[in-house]
Amino acid sequence: MRTNKIEHIGVFTSGGDSPGMNAALYAIAKAAKANGIKLTGIRKGYEGLIDGDFTTLKPPELQKLSHTGGTMLKTARSKRFMELEGRKKALQTLHTNNIDALIAIGGDGTFKGLLAFSEICDLPFIGIPGTIDNDISGTDYTLGFDSAVNTAIENIDKIRDTAESHNRVFIVEVMGRDSGYIALHSGLTTGADAILIPESGKDFIYLLDKVKNYDSEDAFLVVVSEGDEIGAELVSSKIKELNINVDLRITKLGHVQRGGNPSAMDRMLGIRMGVAAVEQLLNGNSNKMVGVLNNQLHLTPFEEVVKQHQVNDELKALLKLFSK
Amino acid sequence: MRTNKIEHIGVFTSGGDSPGMNAALYAIAKAAKANGIKLTGIRKGYEGLIDGDFTTLKPPELQKLSHTGGTMLKTARSKRFMELEGRKKALQTLHTNNIDALIAIGGDGTFKGLLAFSEICDLPFIGIPGTIDNDISGTDYTLGFDSAVNTAIENIDKIRDTAESHNRVFIVEVMGRDSGYIALHSGLTTGADAILIPESGKDFIYLLDKVKNYDSEDAFLVVVSEGDEIGAELVSSKIKELNINVDLRITKLGHVQRGGNPSAMDRMLGIRMGVAAVEQLLNGNSNKMVGVLNNQLHLTPFEEVVKQHQVNDELKALLKLFSK
Amino acid sequence: MRTNKIEHIGVFTSGGDSPGMNAALYAIAKAAKANGIKLTGIRKGYEGLIDGDFTTLKPPELQKLSHTGGTMLKTARSKRFMELEGRKKALQTLHTNNIDALIAIGGDGTFKGLLAFSEICDLPFIGIPGTIDNDISGTDYTLGFDSAVNTAIENIDKIRDTAESHNRVFIVEVMGRDSGYIALHSGLTTGADAILIPESGKDFIYLLDKVKNYDSEDAFLVVVSEGDEIGAELVSSKIKELNINVDLRITKLGHVQRGGNPSAMDRMLGIRMGVAAVEQLLNGNSNKMVGVLNNQLHLTPFEEVVKQHQVNDELKALLKLFSK
Amino acid sequence: MRTNKIEHIGVFTSGGDSPGMNAALYAIAKAAKANGIKLTGIRKGYEGLIDGDFTTLKPPELQKLSHTGGTMLKTARSKRFMELEGRKKALQTLHTNNIDALIAIGGDGTFKGLLAFSEICDLPFIGIPGTIDNDISGTDYTLGFDSAVNTAIENIDKIRDTAESHNRVFIVEVMGRDSGYIALHSGLTTGADAILIPESGKDFIYLLDKVKNYDSEDAFLVVVSEGDEIGAELVSSKIKELNINVDLRITKLGHVQRGGNPSAMDRMLGIRMGVAAVEQLLNGNSNKMVGVLNNQLHLTPFEEVVKQHQVNDELKALLKLFSK
Repeated sequence: MRTNKIEHIGVFTSGGDSPGMNAALYAIAKAAKANGIKLTGIRKGYEGLIDGDFTTLKPPELQKLSHTGGTMLKTARSKRFMELEGRKKALQTLHTNNIDALIAIGGDGTFKGLLAFSEICDLPFIGIPGTIDNDISGTDYTLGFDSAVNTAIENIDKIRDTAESHNRVFIVEVMGRDSGYIALHSGLTTGADAILIPESGKDFIYLLDKVKNYDSEDAFLVVVSEGDEIGAELVSSKIKELNINVDLRITKLGHVQRGGNPSAMDRMLGIRMGVAAVEQLLNGNSNKMVGVLNNQLHLTPFEEVVKQHQVNDELKALLKLFSK
Repeated sequence: MRTNKIEHIGVFTSGGDSPGMNAALYAIAKAAKANGIKLTGIRKGYEGLIDGDFTTLKPPELQKLSHTGGTMLKTARSKRFMELEGRKKALQTLHTNNIDALIAIGGDGTFKGLLAFSEICDLPFIGIPGTIDNDISGTDYTLGFDSAVNTAIENIDKIRDTAESHNRVFIVEVMGRDSGYIALHSGLTTGADAILIPESGKDFIYLLDKVKNYDSEDAFLVVVSEGDEIGAELVSSKIKELNINVDLRITKLGHVQRGGNPSAMDRMLGIRMGVAAVEQLLNGNSNKMVGVLNNQLHLTPFEEVVKQHQVNDELKALLKLFSK
Repeated sequence: MRTNKIEHIGVFTSGGDSPGMNAALYAIAKAAKANGIKLTGIRKGYEGLIDGDFTTLKPPELQKLSHTGGTMLKTARSKRFMELEGRKKALQTLHTNNIDALIAIGGDGTFKGLLAFSEICDLPFIGIPGTIDNDISGTDYTLGFDSAVNTAIENIDKIRDTAESHNRVFIVEVMGRDSGYIALHSGLTTGADAILIPESGKDFIYLLDKVKNYDSEDAFLVVVSEGDEIGAELVSSKIKELNINVDLRITKLGHVQRGGNPSAMDRMLGIRMGVAAVEQLLNGNSNKMVGVLNNQLHLTPFEEVVKQHQVNDELKALLKLFSK
Repeated sequence: MRTNKIEHIGVFTSGGDSPGMNAALYAIAKAAKANGIKLTGIRKGYEGLIDGDFTTLKPPELQKLSHTGGTMLKTARSKRFMELEGRKKALQTLHTNNIDALIAIGGDGTFKGLLAFSEICDLPFIGIPGTIDNDISGTDYTLGFDSAVNTAIENIDKIRDTAESHNRVFIVEVMGRDSGYIALHSGLTTGADAILIPESGKDFIYLLDKVKNYDSEDAFLVVVSEGDEIGAELVSSKIKELNINVDLRITKLGHVQRGGNPSAMDRMLGIRMGVAAVEQLLNGNSNKMVGVLNNQLHLTPFEEVVKQHQVNDELKALLKLFSK
């Protein structure tokens, strides 16, 4: 670790965008300015780090954007940064531009990139967990998760209207990659009759039992995670195999869950973690992610955050209770 | 046509539900009460008409529901009513219950049903166009169309956030059956780069030309109607055949477009058409649909309303201009 | 009227901002470009016209903003333009910059300004009605009205939740200056128990009769227009004079009605009127406002549009029916 | 404490309603049923407890309402329960109906009522913190707070549109009684230029300094808590005393903050706390509030929860940083 004073921070967003990233950038700009530190925005994640695709970030501009979705720095996945040559070029770009420290907002791929980069680069890095999937250890919630769940439930509430009007069985697929957090939260909070998440495996028995006995004078709502092992189509085919008389529909919410103005919680999370990221760099920390664990700011080494965030026992018990 | 005084009206919703149906029911209840007429709600469309599945409708209960989506009378498609025997049973149910007149809220299938029913039933019928597709002649807008478009654009606005963050090509599929109204309105109002509707046929040339030359530093947004002849998958495969380097995603908004609290315009449309339906029955009219044509209340015979509502010249010109 | 060919159009927004103005600017830019016309944005209404506070408007930038509220050209009220000297300076600014024609988006004050300006300026002007108040003749709806009503009803729906939980009497004041359109639409579409608009005068008798007999096991919702002659405080004091035992609350929705992403209808209205404004200038028209009357594009001379848009007979009858 | 087995739980909502109460009721019904316990809903808070105004609560009905605002049990403030006589009558009602335990959802007034009741009643009580104000100790967040903040920020985002279009100074007043939580969260997350909360006292100096130097080419947004000692009018008068040339507007968001469908977080909070309330009663706990502290379920004695929830050091530091 270099012991030089930090005078110039670079920040970028990487991986899938998530609502709240602009709020985090606003907070980083505020904290940098308050500490007399120069701040440079790096566009398109690692691609911009390699190519020197930079922009100046100032609080007044970011203040106007802090309530918006997406990331004003744009984001990308970078094949070049997976190669040593790309990382060497990135290092050179940092040196050329006198950048002393990096803040990266992204998911596990982003942090794996920083771990690889740390082998050749001695600048301090701090990460902020930005992904709608809530699949990062070291934080109760990732930036964007609450917004994604709110978008999901507003849409599922709408689907309930038409499902009840027709007494239909509806299968709604939500995002989350390997994590059932979005499905679990959006299913519980919309009064779903069945919730299927990857963590529970392909055990469809309880769902099939329940749908067989469902009150045909009412709707039956299934919320299911995306994924080949689970997903809406698989659930649909299992129900159809029952040969019961139901009127069944599928809706996959898709990328709407990634956009939109962030919720209050995600804006606050972005602000809290953005300020903390700057402060932790100034405190001499590096190679750690800033999270909010047990509702307190918390630092976790990158090695640990890339482990998947497990659904805890309280949530598992809720899933069991509400599946009855 | 019977010339008896109308003392008891039955009302039902039929076909796909659409936001605004409960506002129309509230208005019908208000107008019926003001005219001293008994009002009976018939549940589940023609199914309830056959089976006598009735409920009492009173203004105070409906007042609380008028802002909600779906239909509190439920709706269904009825195979039995397509047979003469089913219609005869429905006629008997009406006579047994002393119902003097019917108001039906639904789409073209509903009105075709009423036309068939009128061959054996001499009660007066008035229809209200309720479908999100806006595919009914005799009205500028059908009940639910404006809400569906608002739901579509709120979701497409969210997709724009993530599309711009990644510089992606996004294909968003909206509903509308054979009608391009939802796609046309939601595409124009979200600043889409290309809009594909059934009325324009399968001419993808302009889209493909445009996407070939699109600025890879930006998003490219396609809004397309559902349907085998058009649809998101077909557009996607056409773009992929170009073998250009784009990052392409598909989202099908699906049934979220059918639910949710109705927009202001749909609530007003429901109120205007609901009151007019009662008044037109009392005026001795029958076998006509109440619509709002050129922003004025208007009656159209059922024979004409089942012709599809054509996209007018002004809209076609707008489509052409904004496709450039 | 000059007969010179139009090669350069200036556009500005003036008076109170309203949702949909950015959609109209997008459409104007598209139509200008399609016709090979240069387009200049004039900032801050007549103030920018006097001072030459100009900006370039290009379709790609506006495409990204067309779904947003407010006006990207900013707006202002101009005392200087009310004086002949200010208007002379504005004329000189137009000549210096070779602007051939003007499009103004605003309310009656804006059009009165253009009428005064036309006495010394022979350039062609076209107006677009942009105000949430819907108080302009020559158009069914002004730009922003539908969005304001949707914002109002979403908030009134929320108030209904708490009003019903407490069995309270709620008085909600909405905007509209001298026009009852917002109150009438938002009251009817939220199932209000009483609606008070300036057009009905200060006749509180029906409201007071109704509230005296209201079911204390339920909420009682009053929607009232702003204004000294009417307004929430006056209604509140009249109810308190009854000395009946009610739990009464007031909410004034205020400026939230002026902002937010425009509704689908307002975006379409902006697009339709924006394109038509350019086309009508090219057709040689001047000193007219483009409106949508009976759902058709329509031109009205400025002299007539400044007359207040009257609440029509159908709406008056609905008000009477739903007040019972 | 009685050691009898709990077979019949009564539940009521009391004090101001808040979004999420229906989700909590749904969870309580689910948990009660899973444990074979009879559940009775008590309407209108302590009033219904005194009068025996009861209703049956079953999971299927509550499942449909869990996503809605308000409280389906209604709520009220009870003067009678403040008297010993009222509490004695309530005790008798409980005994007559064989209710073994109580769950109360409400704020500090509710818990003070339970403390007084516990002097004469030996039944076990568990409380759930339901208030938008977030002013209860023993929980990170109260039920309804997150929804209120989300409603506030959606409306403040709209106000930003019009404020920026006019370069206006806007003072937005939010709720919170003596607590600055809503103001602090909604101010930080909307990029407000100044935030005033009761906890900071009447020190307006920083605000006045900042507004004196504000960029007249932009908006200036103040978010302030309600209250006589602070409030929008006071801020407005202080700014006017500066005699600077600003265009100033006030909006008080009012009761819209109390209604609307609850946010995802509030629905989850209601579900988590509702299930825990039933389980803690069965575990033999009493006279405690179930909260979520440091993101974990936590029990706090009523004596402690009525102390006001203090704004913590992290939030104070954020307030200071973002006020610069």
